[in-house]
Amino acid sequence: MKQQLTIDPLDAHSLTQLAMDKANDIGVPMCIAVVDASCNLLSFVRMDGGKHHSANVAMDKAYTAASAKRRTVEIGPLAQPNGPLFGIFTQQGGRFCIVGGGVPLWQDGQCVGGIGISSGTVDQDIAVAEYAVEQWTQMQHTSQCA
Amino acid sequence: MKQQLTIDPLDAHSLTQLAMDKANDIGVPMCIAVVDASCNLLSFVRMDGGKHHSANVAMDKAYTAASAKRRTVEIGPLAQPNGPLFGIFTQQGGRFCIVGGGVPLWQDGQCVGGIGISSGTVDQDIAVAEYAVEQWTQMQHTSQCA
Amino acid sequence: MKQQLTIDPLDAHSLTQLAMDKANDIGVPMCIAVVDASCNLLSFVRMDGGKHHSANVAMDKAYTAASAKRRTVEIGPLAQPNGPLFGIFTQQGGRFCIVGGGVPLWQDGQCVGGIGISSGTVDQDIAVAEYAVEQWTQMQHTSQCA
Amino acid sequence: MKQQLTIDPLDAHSLTQLAMDKANDIGVPMCIAVVDASCNLLSFVRMDGGKHHSANVAMDKAYTAASAKRRTVEIGPLAQPNGPLFGIFTQQGGRFCIVGGGVPLWQDGQCVGGIGISSGTVDQDIAVAEYAVEQWTQMQHTSQCA
Repeated sequence: MKQQLTIDPLDAHSLTQLAMDKANDIGVPMCIAVVDASCNLLSFVRMDGGKHHSANVAMDKAYTAASAKRRTVEIGPLAQPNGPLFGIFTQQGGRFCIVGGGVPLWQDGQCVGGIGISSGTVDQDIAVAEYAVEQWTQMQHTSQCA
Repeated sequence: MKQQLTIDPLDAHSLTQLAMDKANDIGVPMCIAVVDASCNLLSFVRMDGGKHHSANVAMDKAYTAASAKRRTVEIGPLAQPNGPLFGIFTQQGGRFCIVGGGVPLWQDGQCVGGIGISSGTVDQDIAVAEYAVEQWTQMQHTSQCA
Repeated sequence: MKQQLTIDPLDAHSLTQLAMDKANDIGVPMCIAVVDASCNLLSFVRMDGGKHHSANVAMDKAYTAASAKRRTVEIGPLAQPNGPLFGIFTQQGGRFCIVGGGVPLWQDGQCVGGIGISSGTVDQDIAVAEYAVEQWTQMQHTSQCA
Repeated sequence: MKQQLTIDPLDAHSLTQLAMDKANDIGVPMCIAVVDASCNLLSFVRMDGGKHHSANVAMDKAYTAASAKRRTVEIGPLAQPNGPLFGIFTQQGGRFCIVGGGVPLWQDGQCVGGIGISSGTVDQDIAVAEYAVEQWTQMQHTSQCA
């Protein structure tokens, strides 16, 4: 038996709020997915105007980031033609997503979940995901130090 | 944040051994799958003579038991025509399995994983799964009391 | 290491010819699939006029019969509402087929493959499958005694 | 009829043990899958810390290596844009895996199974797979000569 540290619904709520703040800030409605340490979906929100197919893309970005324990934008280059991971994108019935916008969540050196953003340009998706994770990580740090 | 209690590879190994003991005892080669608290596969064994399709059936029984947190044989009656869960069996691409032989694992009131057995009759599958879980649960109890 | 007895392409050819003979005899063009002991497809023929969807149905009947090591028509009753295998038909992405017309092939007490027939009524499918297996089994017996 | 030589559960156990030894040696927890000559799953182990998505990747690498009868790392280059196998990676619902870490098993000139490793870098996955196959092949040779 072992204990697995993972984000919980409150964390998912915070992360989603932060992502929505940033999405509103840049004026792009987003699809926002959060998975826990087991890579299972904790929450999903499609903001008004978020693209339909982006629902699954956001979920797959979050899944991939939490499972691979790295940003999806870092996996992309390895999965280009002639790269060592070329072809990996068909795995899990095509759910393995190598497009930027998926970011893993860390605490105490453990991967505790992931967030996936989709509906904007890839740069916009990444900006929203990174903002949410950065702010959430800071909140974690602050609450631990208090 | 929260801590999720889950079985680990050693538990999966013990459960598999116990299931193989019982399968050998009744003379029926089995497919044996174990998933952790997150419903992700920890281990799988197809004993010599285990049926090919039973590999997936065993994995899906384990997955369903851990996710639904109940024996698959208890879900079956609810999924009959006119029952409240009729049709549930097509979920997850058909992986949601309502046939007996999937049993969840509990500790301290939490579901910490699941085991799925397939290749015999449903009654044989159930007998092997229940034996493994019963013995493993007793081992857990003993080691905690020691 | 072990040796697995299995039908080979010549057997598949014989079985297909026998099935086509019977199909022509009753005037119903059929889809005819043969799998080996590993449940992998050895041959497939769609006779002129065979239904399009029956291609997959025939392959799935052959697969199921060889893997479950029994006639699909015998599995059907167990998979009815309130039966022990109700719900099994969604397994393998829905490939597990409980409709009559799949028949396993036996030799020396081992399951060595399967045949699946589809495109007629279920009774016609079964008649063609049974004829092919019966004649082929007799041929095997004769050649072994010769 | 013919006899198909294949690895059995004992071989799968040996291969898995050897792979775990090497994985421990390099300090990277791995997912380890072994399929028989028919490409059907014989065994699977996710070591503590092995990535969730790597379970399927390992199974798909083993499947592809045994079915294609070559290392997955050798298939990759042929599947690049403008290569003869470009696009092959979507086959079998995306299970056809062209990423390194899948290695076929040979005996007496026949492909008798395959192993697939996933969770590390591609180079680490390959190193573990090759080690296990090399050691197992030597054991086979030794036991035959004894």
